[in-house]
Amino acid sequence: MSFNSFGRLFRFTTWGESHGPALGAVVDGCPPGLELDEAWIQPFMDARKPGTSRFTTQRQEADLVRILSGVFEGRTTGTPISLMIENTDQRSKDYSEVALAYRPGHADYAYDAKYGFRDYRGGGRSSARETAARVAAGAVARRVVPEVTIRAWVSELGGDAIDIAQFDFAEIGRNPFFCPDAEAAKRWEALVDGARKDGSSLGAVVECIAEGVPPGWGAPLYGKLDADLAAAMMGINAVKGVEIGDGFRAARLRGEDNADPMRPGEAGGSGGPQFLANHAGGIAGGISTGQPVTVRVAFKPTSSILIPVETIGRDGQAADIRTKGRHDPCVGIRGVPVVEAMMALVLADHKLLHRGQCGG
Amino acid sequence: MSFNSFGRLFRFTTWGESHGPALGAVVDGCPPGLELDEAWIQPFMDARKPGTSRFTTQRQEADLVRILSGVFEGRTTGTPISLMIENTDQRSKDYSEVALAYRPGHADYAYDAKYGFRDYRGGGRSSARETAARVAAGAVARRVVPEVTIRAWVSELGGDAIDIAQFDFAEIGRNPFFCPDAEAAKRWEALVDGARKDGSSLGAVVECIAEGVPPGWGAPLYGKLDADLAAAMMGINAVKGVEIGDGFRAARLRGEDNADPMRPGEAGGSGGPQFLANHAGGIAGGISTGQPVTVRVAFKPTSSILIPVETIGRDGQAADIRTKGRHDPCVGIRGVPVVEAMMALVLADHKLLHRGQCGG
Amino acid sequence: MSFNSFGRLFRFTTWGESHGPALGAVVDGCPPGLELDEAWIQPFMDARKPGTSRFTTQRQEADLVRILSGVFEGRTTGTPISLMIENTDQRSKDYSEVALAYRPGHADYAYDAKYGFRDYRGGGRSSARETAARVAAGAVARRVVPEVTIRAWVSELGGDAIDIAQFDFAEIGRNPFFCPDAEAAKRWEALVDGARKDGSSLGAVVECIAEGVPPGWGAPLYGKLDADLAAAMMGINAVKGVEIGDGFRAARLRGEDNADPMRPGEAGGSGGPQFLANHAGGIAGGISTGQPVTVRVAFKPTSSILIPVETIGRDGQAADIRTKGRHDPCVGIRGVPVVEAMMALVLADHKLLHRGQCGG
Amino acid sequence: MSFNSFGRLFRFTTWGESHGPALGAVVDGCPPGLELDEAWIQPFMDARKPGTSRFTTQRQEADLVRILSGVFEGRTTGTPISLMIENTDQRSKDYSEVALAYRPGHADYAYDAKYGFRDYRGGGRSSARETAARVAAGAVARRVVPEVTIRAWVSELGGDAIDIAQFDFAEIGRNPFFCPDAEAAKRWEALVDGARKDGSSLGAVVECIAEGVPPGWGAPLYGKLDADLAAAMMGINAVKGVEIGDGFRAARLRGEDNADPMRPGEAGGSGGPQFLANHAGGIAGGISTGQPVTVRVAFKPTSSILIPVETIGRDGQAADIRTKGRHDPCVGIRGVPVVEAMMALVLADHKLLHRGQCGG
Repeated sequence: MSFNSFGRLFRFTTWGESHGPALGAVVDGCPPGLELDEAWIQPFMDARKPGTSRFTTQRQEADLVRILSGVFEGRTTGTPISLMIENTDQRSKDYSEVALAYRPGHADYAYDAKYGFRDYRGGGRSSARETAARVAAGAVARRVVPEVTIRAWVSELGGDAIDIAQFDFAEIGRNPFFCPDAEAAKRWEALVDGARKDGSSLGAVVECIAEGVPPGWGAPLYGKLDADLAAAMMGINAVKGVEIGDGFRAARLRGEDNADPMRPGEAGGSGGPQFLANHAGGIAGGISTGQPVTVRVAFKPTSSILIPVETIGRDGQAADIRTKGRHDPCVGIRGVPVVEAMMALVLADHKLLHRGQCGG
Repeated sequence: MSFNSFGRLFRFTTWGESHGPALGAVVDGCPPGLELDEAWIQPFMDARKPGTSRFTTQRQEADLVRILSGVFEGRTTGTPISLMIENTDQRSKDYSEVALAYRPGHADYAYDAKYGFRDYRGGGRSSARETAARVAAGAVARRVVPEVTIRAWVSELGGDAIDIAQFDFAEIGRNPFFCPDAEAAKRWEALVDGARKDGSSLGAVVECIAEGVPPGWGAPLYGKLDADLAAAMMGINAVKGVEIGDGFRAARLRGEDNADPMRPGEAGGSGGPQFLANHAGGIAGGISTGQPVTVRVAFKPTSSILIPVETIGRDGQAADIRTKGRHDPCVGIRGVPVVEAMMALVLADHKLLHRGQCGG
Repeated sequence: MSFNSFGRLFRFTTWGESHGPALGAVVDGCPPGLELDEAWIQPFMDARKPGTSRFTTQRQEADLVRILSGVFEGRTTGTPISLMIENTDQRSKDYSEVALAYRPGHADYAYDAKYGFRDYRGGGRSSARETAARVAAGAVARRVVPEVTIRAWVSELGGDAIDIAQFDFAEIGRNPFFCPDAEAAKRWEALVDGARKDGSSLGAVVECIAEGVPPGWGAPLYGKLDADLAAAMMGINAVKGVEIGDGFRAARLRGEDNADPMRPGEAGGSGGPQFLANHAGGIAGGISTGQPVTVRVAFKPTSSILIPVETIGRDGQAADIRTKGRHDPCVGIRGVPVVEAMMALVLADHKLLHRGQCGG
Repeated sequence: MSFNSFGRLFRFTTWGESHGPALGAVVDGCPPGLELDEAWIQPFMDARKPGTSRFTTQRQEADLVRILSGVFEGRTTGTPISLMIENTDQRSKDYSEVALAYRPGHADYAYDAKYGFRDYRGGGRSSARETAARVAAGAVARRVVPEVTIRAWVSELGGDAIDIAQFDFAEIGRNPFFCPDAEAAKRWEALVDGARKDGSSLGAVVECIAEGVPPGWGAPLYGKLDADLAAAMMGINAVKGVEIGDGFRAARLRGEDNADPMRPGEAGGSGGPQFLANHAGGIAGGISTGQPVTVRVAFKPTSSILIPVETIGRDGQAADIRTKGRHDPCVGIRGVPVVEAMMALVLADHKLLHRGQCGG
């Protein structure tokens, strides 16, 4: 994993800034012969794209993906797949203030410290707009792991958690929050509206489950499936915490309560054992066990807020900054398709790695 | 990062099994001219080594490191540093039962599913004994980042957290729990003794702080400092969760409460800004800000327990298993020097990466 | 180095097929703050582009490069630089025959054997058209190593070598063969014309010298400068041999004749020693010595010829094939800017690697 | 490929100096379940080891390999295989002069320029003694590609080439030169004896053929099989040139003479086509074609000679140096098993890479 590439065998490289002409991803190492076209990718883009409800940024981007290489007659050729998304709704004038002072919570100061200067328009490279490229690449990855079903949702928003008893997968697509609990979704409307009116923002927790992962994916000790997932998720903009399975709750359990007991698999079943619990989140010793792979991801509140925050300018002088422009009141919401994409990308890589080392 | 290598420029590769003749690490990419000898490394090994109190495993290992290459006349030469630690206290007979049935929570089933068979003696490659190699490599890494002070401790054990008001760095070395709160350390004695008597085990939370990291380390977007730390920590045996800065708590804050406001640095200071808070844990946009880098790591309870757990055998038949042998009642405790080592290893790599791309 | 990426710190990834809409390169790890715009890159593209004389393919491509990311206000930002070149002169109808039968010497059969099918239009991914992306990336690399002067030329064409006594750097740009010997250039006109009339093709030897490389670049033992150059050059389309310094001639020398004796450097010089010979081609033990780095590269004759060759079809049946279309009678000629680009790319990577590990 | 690691999926890392306590290799990514023990590796070590005839160095090393990890009950487990070889016959006193002055042709000056100082004993890390680790790793690689037969030989020594009409594989093992031409072997005795008496040294050309490589191995465009072989071979100590197939001779052929025509494979054959020639050396577009893979490697004469050569000291002053000690009069001879090992290592990696991306 280099600066802007992720993965080993199934590897993608992203490029592009928030306010440049375009952004994109090059997906390398994809198996040949998989069906792929723009129509397959677009629905995943649409799930992430801005401006679809009043609870996300009002920037309007069609986020149309173009496949520039690596596909011939509707199938992947095994060569690099270049995916490009044009930026169409930049308003660089919004960023004159940002050019002069550092927005706390953003990468502004860190980029200047590292590189000596920065493309300040919309956050440049550090903009969450880059996640569009991840989602496009993730759509390709899904073709590599058709045996796996990946679903993510917001389980907590602004500190208000869903009621697990009300969990309904079908509900996720019916509200603007990717919320599986219809009651919670209603509460969150008021919560997000309130934050937006205050010029503030909210955090969220996103959960993701991958079902159908066979046992044996993952590579100890420094290519562990859970370590790769942790890197994949922590690298998403605004993420500050990652849990596999029970995560921090496991630290409060006793050994016998944290065990995932096994019983012989059912006759006629997949051949694997039957697990009586899944505290481990489907991964042991860095290798998948055949149980669902589960991950929880903490998104901090959007750093771009209208409430003034103390900061300093590029000139080192004290300043106050209010981040105008069009921002998500809760970046965690649109993080859902990104988390799914990163899950798909990690699993695709590990499927190929496992096949490479161990065959079949 | 390949199967058993970690890092890009400063990279280490570990090898060895719990019950083989030895284990070790090859550290590659180390800058030349650094002072290094076994005496520098050994204290870090001693902090991790087993058998030092009744609260850790009773396996006796001297964990003496030998430097086999890469050092000449007391200084690193820039060539690979081979570090070897002999295993001296194997008792393979303890593992006859493990050969036949899978220990829930361990990697036994996953290894068999992946590789077709496994070295079952003491967990083989999946044993936490491998972390000795990380600690040795981490000691080398510290030489690369002398400007950084890294300290870790147990902040919660078996669900019992320290009182932050009682926090005292000096206390960490005075009790067998790496606990900075003397009162908590006393309570934990009873807690761990109780778990051990019950044949059970406990989880823990380890926290780590790295002070002195200059702004600019880390490489967006897939070599982010926080993403690498997440991978480094999640890859440690028994770890199930990682947080940077406020972690999951950030998901419950509003934007203005999560901001880390900046003021001009003090005259005569390091030149960087003064931050009024550190919710971000010293990292923004994947790049260090000059604030302390903070990470929290959740260790699950030791999976090896005497309380019988339902499982299956290699033959697919139902079985119960009690894991005899000499085990840590709480692996999180000895995780402290390992967390420190991984922090050092990640920082050393990023220091060199930054210097490579951006110079001085 | 992954499937379609080259380099470690300064790394580029190429994508695109001969007859797709575009091709490009993503350059990652570039130091920030370097001046860069399309105008800098274009002359290198023009040197490689087809259709500039009757001695190269008559395909007409403007080969205009567009910078899509990574540059802000005329300077590199340290983030990925996406370079795109549109294909404008595809004639896919030329390739109906190629779809059905394998062209000997081309990658047709190998691609089908590997991937199960292939994009046969113009060779798809295996087309030498991909080298346009290398040249664009190489132009960026030159910005990273301004201390180095890189020059390549054709030293032998169709078995007819230049007279070293007539060598004149200024002559290289004056003839369509990148030939430093005006007399040889005249002879080659007839040679290439003859081959083209015969429907045949010719091979060539390209030489390259990089002056100004300081001592210390290169990383033993598996990141040696010469090993990387060998990979870089052997990976160019149609290349079958690579020599560093004296190459195969060194195998016929005695030790004392192959030595590069040293004398103290001149007062007021660069500080390095004065070498009395350069059989080694500026590299010892995989590390640059401060002498000019020299490499020789053998290009086979173009495989696309009008003379019929025995082959088989995709159906396994015997066939004869004549490769119609617009082809270079000698691919080695246009290999000159590609060899220069690969030299620049390898050196840029090693400069950063050296700085990363050893500082300054 | 990092500083001291080679390969992607099947990757090895070497460590150790000529006069340290030991040297070794860690082989990572090896498929599980392969039979492996020291007895399998040792014959390859014996073929390379010094002191077996008067035509190689008189240093006496048993070169006994110890497997320290990654093998359980005689089979590879899929975890890292640590291979260690102790150094037993160091005579560091031979190197007092080398500490003070640079040996032309050696890496002495380059190492000092890069690292600031060096382990001068026997060349330290730059010693050809490191190739013992490659040979050990190569023996493991052979287990990964049992379908392939790899054989190398010296085809030219001191400018005296074998007569291809006298080529006999069986002869290679019967003389101390790995020479397939009995007549040439006799001539070379006198040649090498003469050079040794003169205090001089000779170069050599080594050729290698790998039969049984199926079509489809290799990964365009920056993981080409030929590019990897070029790097692998050029990285061997003293190598200055690499050719695939006809190499530089191809640059003198016309297109129709360089073509490898195809005819339908024989009924009952492997299914692949029948090739009527193999100018390409079994590789097209960076991918194996199913023909034998052939490579030629040029070794310069040993740089350590008794004839005085002009040089400078570490103090920058002029000096003459005669390299005493025990040296090979022709390093190319013992290069034969090293070339074979590198061929095996590259092929093993590409087999796994191909299986990873393309399955089966």
